[in-house]
Amino acid sequence: MTDDALVIFTPSGKRGRFAIGTPVLTAARQLGVDLDSVCGGRGICSKCQITPGYGEFPKHGVTVAEGALSEWNAVEDRYNRIRGLAAGRRLGCQAKVMGDVVIDVPPESQVHKQVIRKSAAERHIDMDPATRALYVEVQEPDMEEPTGDFERLKRALAAQWQIEGVEADLSVLRRLQPVLRKGEWKATVVLHRGNHDAAHRILDIFPGYHDLPLYGLAVDLGSTTIAAHLCSLTDGRVLASSGLMNPQIRFGEDLMSRVSYAMMNPGGDVEMTRAVREAIDHLSRTIAQEAGIAASAIYEMAIVFNPVMHHLFLGVDPVELGQAPFALATSDSLSLDARDLDLTSLNRNARVYVLPCIAGHVGADCAAVALAEEPQKSKDMVLIVDVGTNAELLCGNEARVLACSSPTGPAFEGAQISSGQRAAPGAIERVQIDPVTKEPRFRIIGVEPWSDEPGFADAAQKTGITGICGSGIIEAVAEMRMAGLVDPGGLVGGSEQTGTARCEPHGRTFSYLIHDGTATGGPRITVTQGDIRAIQLAKSALYAGARLLMDELGVDKVDRVVLAGAFGAHISAKHAMVLGMIPDVPLDRVFSAGNAAGTGARIALLNRAARDGIERTVHDIHKVETAIEPRFQEHFVNANAIPHAVDTFPELSKIVTLPDVSFNTGGSGGEGGRRRRRG
Amino acid sequence: MTDDALVIFTPSGKRGRFAIGTPVLTAARQLGVDLDSVCGGRGICSKCQITPGYGEFPKHGVTVAEGALSEWNAVEDRYNRIRGLAAGRRLGCQAKVMGDVVIDVPPESQVHKQVIRKSAAERHIDMDPATRALYVEVQEPDMEEPTGDFERLKRALAAQWQIEGVEADLSVLRRLQPVLRKGEWKATVVLHRGNHDAAHRILDIFPGYHDLPLYGLAVDLGSTTIAAHLCSLTDGRVLASSGLMNPQIRFGEDLMSRVSYAMMNPGGDVEMTRAVREAIDHLSRTIAQEAGIAASAIYEMAIVFNPVMHHLFLGVDPVELGQAPFALATSDSLSLDARDLDLTSLNRNARVYVLPCIAGHVGADCAAVALAEEPQKSKDMVLIVDVGTNAELLCGNEARVLACSSPTGPAFEGAQISSGQRAAPGAIERVQIDPVTKEPRFRIIGVEPWSDEPGFADAAQKTGITGICGSGIIEAVAEMRMAGLVDPGGLVGGSEQTGTARCEPHGRTFSYLIHDGTATGGPRITVTQGDIRAIQLAKSALYAGARLLMDELGVDKVDRVVLAGAFGAHISAKHAMVLGMIPDVPLDRVFSAGNAAGTGARIALLNRAARDGIERTVHDIHKVETAIEPRFQEHFVNANAIPHAVDTFPELSKIVTLPDVSFNTGGSGGEGGRRRRRG
Repeated sequence: MTDDALVIFTPSGKRGRFAIGTPVLTAARQLGVDLDSVCGGRGICSKCQITPGYGEFPKHGVTVAEGALSEWNAVEDRYNRIRGLAAGRRLGCQAKVMGDVVIDVPPESQVHKQVIRKSAAERHIDMDPATRALYVEVQEPDMEEPTGDFERLKRALAAQWQIEGVEADLSVLRRLQPVLRKGEWKATVVLHRGNHDAAHRILDIFPGYHDLPLYGLAVDLGSTTIAAHLCSLTDGRVLASSGLMNPQIRFGEDLMSRVSYAMMNPGGDVEMTRAVREAIDHLSRTIAQEAGIAASAIYEMAIVFNPVMHHLFLGVDPVELGQAPFALATSDSLSLDARDLDLTSLNRNARVYVLPCIAGHVGADCAAVALAEEPQKSKDMVLIVDVGTNAELLCGNEARVLACSSPTGPAFEGAQISSGQRAAPGAIERVQIDPVTKEPRFRIIGVEPWSDEPGFADAAQKTGITGICGSGIIEAVAEMRMAGLVDPGGLVGGSEQTGTARCEPHGRTFSYLIHDGTATGGPRITVTQGDIRAIQLAKSALYAGARLLMDELGVDKVDRVVLAGAFGAHISAKHAMVLGMIPDVPLDRVFSAGNAAGTGARIALLNRAARDGIERTVHDIHKVETAIEPRFQEHFVNANAIPHAVDTFPELSKIVTLPDVSFNTGGSGGEGGRRRRRG
Repeated sequence: MTDDALVIFTPSGKRGRFAIGTPVLTAARQLGVDLDSVCGGRGICSKCQITPGYGEFPKHGVTVAEGALSEWNAVEDRYNRIRGLAAGRRLGCQAKVMGDVVIDVPPESQVHKQVIRKSAAERHIDMDPATRALYVEVQEPDMEEPTGDFERLKRALAAQWQIEGVEADLSVLRRLQPVLRKGEWKATVVLHRGNHDAAHRILDIFPGYHDLPLYGLAVDLGSTTIAAHLCSLTDGRVLASSGLMNPQIRFGEDLMSRVSYAMMNPGGDVEMTRAVREAIDHLSRTIAQEAGIAASAIYEMAIVFNPVMHHLFLGVDPVELGQAPFALATSDSLSLDARDLDLTSLNRNARVYVLPCIAGHVGADCAAVALAEEPQKSKDMVLIVDVGTNAELLCGNEARVLACSSPTGPAFEGAQISSGQRAAPGAIERVQIDPVTKEPRFRIIGVEPWSDEPGFADAAQKTGITGICGSGIIEAVAEMRMAGLVDPGGLVGGSEQTGTARCEPHGRTFSYLIHDGTATGGPRITVTQGDIRAIQLAKSALYAGARLLMDELGVDKVDRVVLAGAFGAHISAKHAMVLGMIPDVPLDRVFSAGNAAGTGARIALLNRAARDGIERTVHDIHKVETAIEPRFQEHFVNANAIPHAVDTFPELSKIVTLPDVSFNTGGSGGEGGRRRRRG
């Protein structure tokens, strides 16, 4: 009898010994096994499903006995009763290790490498970088001139470049003498001066004249994805853009799950800090490879994030962000050494500029959006919506700008959706439903033709049709509403009411079948009543946030709407408005800004004055706190319905007519929201 | 057949496998075995003698065959012919590992823990420390006040202490929120602002009002010894003083041996940097223990050293200091993070102030001596001599101050002397020779009575009479001169000429026997002709340096002499002058300053204005380079004699008459110095 046991994960082959009673999810995290979790191990999301193997595993040299995992528990029981758990499956967060065991992580439980759709928007930026290369000629030492080489280098910079006040790290001082001699007293120095620095600091030095390109990284660290743009610090050109999933997802999908994880697990914040720093370091290395440059030529990073990511990246416990008054540890911009953030793949002396936060729930990412979209300079009233797991909203004009953040949750990113998945090849991203036949057609990521067009079937064989992503579920729900399959309260009609067999019973409610892949071993992709509820919650949060800002500004309409975010660029304006995600506005006044936060980071990376600018601007942007504002709750409840176009969306009614259907599935107690709306 | 072999060292028991052909000294260094070396492994100093064992070693599980070490080589042959090597002994730097072997390190080859005689001089210093503790009351966050806790702390420091521009390390930001909440929005911050810093930086923070004592370390890192004073940063009090041997001694006793070690061994400088940083870190920990404080309460260090130590401490290869024009990598003062110097036992955010160097061979230790002794403010002409393995000299007055360094070598510290040893219990430190009977009496370190006084024999049994240290050899040679045993050219007379059997033949020259301990198994302690030559070289270097500075200043006498250095405090003024170490001056105008470099470090630690002051002063002190100055050579040769008092030392002749003896041992070709003098 021992009090620990061997746990082997497949397909990764990762293995380790764990104390009896360790949850499988915990073991997977500690081994770095790719096992998803949305809820942070609270038995809610079911994303951590695993399949224990029993019997002999000669390959792994282990025999797994019955009882190697703890017995099926109440949480799994309930989950199975309500949503169904495939035979042999367990919830990784509930099943505990009781003996040597082999655990298979099925593909759908893995956090896949994703196609990140963030890409650098084209934009003109004035170059005024904090880092530049300068060539100098240094006086040789002689017996009459007893100063150090560094002092003579400083004198050369003062005389030849009028630069006073120069500092150097020990690593530079260490290399100074051989470099100056190799270059015969000529050298190229990489000099950095941040917008708050009194002194210039030498980041690097090369012998002789060296026409070296300098690079910087603009990073948008989101709750779900991390996007980076590799930029030339000379001409601002974007050499490569790349992305990665935020590995913190395994500690909880949304921000509050991660705050809870930190609160409930001693050292949990440290674990999350390590994970995200490693990911950014890894991303830096791969993006450099992709662009064919040495990562050591990256001398600067500008980074934006929401406050929870901000704290976790800096290594600050985010616990205070989980409770009123949501105090940040620090809100001003920061200039840091990359090595203090464990970003070891960059140049050893690389600097990191952290954009300022606006307030407790409105982070540097929102500041970056303001920097990119400049609502504070807008003549007309603009609403900027940065859609993500947490949505940031900015509303205003040159007179006044307000900001808030709204907890939309991960539904817009395909999580908490029955057939949901993140944006990856095989995911349904566009949906149309014929209002007459009620038949759907769709497009999947990685395949050009629509599902009813020639060539689709062949092309789709490669990727499979695996699920539905954020933009897909928005279109699906909006199309279902336009086709009369969903009523304004969000209820899905049955086949008798809608006239299509695709509306099939699902417990006491109905689901709409978009695609049945079971004949070829694929999944059935449906939109369930639960999915519609999740989307309603998310869109209500977004809409309520926008309304709250408009109330505060005393306006009941805006002149234009900008959809931003990793995912904002892919949302159809029409469908967003049918769904009621955004306030009523002429469709041609809805713009996509792409990843505005990433663009803001890029501007800050390349332009020192822009850093000063946004540091001033954040003090002028007033934060409205949704979490404690009663009117937010009111707007939230009122926004639950999927609108009658003529009611609150007169602009929308010019382009689409929403059928005035009404479904009733028999008066379930859970449909209070609809009844209140229609009462 | 393998190509490596097992090497076991006794008495330490340290063992490791090494490639065939590895010198024993190299193996010892890599294993951290306490094996001395003065010359850095060049077969000169013979300090690394070892005794290989052959046959069965059941305790170590090894059998050592003949041939386990390489054959006796030419270097060993020559050494044995000239100086004699005890039976069974080998030179560790010459003997190479050829098979499994057990190596004994005899006590005299070990670098013993020494009694360091550095102690903090009593001196009044105005307190103006760079680090202080401040109590603040911080505004609580609320929903209307969205700034970060750090921003509100900064605002409190501005309002309550008029301190603007405050920065904090990530480690402080990480602790900020819990500390402020624990202290109910009251806190005590440890704030640092160096003399060049634009901003204040928070080194530490404590909840509430916390009457914490802050400490600093003043460190004098010498070639041979490291001395540290632990000081209160509040009242300047010295809580403890402690010392340690510089572990770099095993890479070479004098500075140039260490520079050669770095040149001849790739990575040798890194090895030496690691060794000295570890030693200082260790010293910091033990001195804190000694004083009964937590080492984490040490927030600052001020450190001084000669240029080679300066470079090796900073991690800069000292190779340029080994060749003209002796260019320093950097000469200005530096403010660094202790953690970048691997000083991990201090507070995590501790700062290190490195005093400025004066020039290539005149380091921060000399600057510190100037700070402590203030020649630049002197009304009279003062010569300050900091005696060490490398001597630093300052000469001048308020009008002008010159400095040089002089390579005295380690003879004054008891090395390169036949019976020499460093200052440790059992070492002869004082000597008197009766001019009539020619009989010596002496005192040893650790024993109060002189050798001819009651109680000496008993007390000396504990320590043994082990050798002769720096101050002892100076007195011995001077007393031999005064007793007529040595002539002005430095020749020791034979027993016929001197009338004492203590002058015994030693090869073709004579030695003087101070103590014969062989009856009780102890050593015979003699002063050989070679010892006198070594002391003559050292004192000539010192004297020549002083004369060179006086020449440059256009003076032929000084008003006072200050003897400084770890060892300067123990030199008898009379004996120094008999020997001709220092220029002629009334004996009551010779002062001992103790460890002036350490005192200077202490002043810089405690007073920020003093840092500004010495940074200005070093630019006004003109360096005179001894290494390339022809007059230095001239003075050096002329200073070889041990003076006739009436000749060049009129002041000396007032108190002592030197016998006008003359010895001739038969005209050895090696006595050219003497003949030139007398020709």
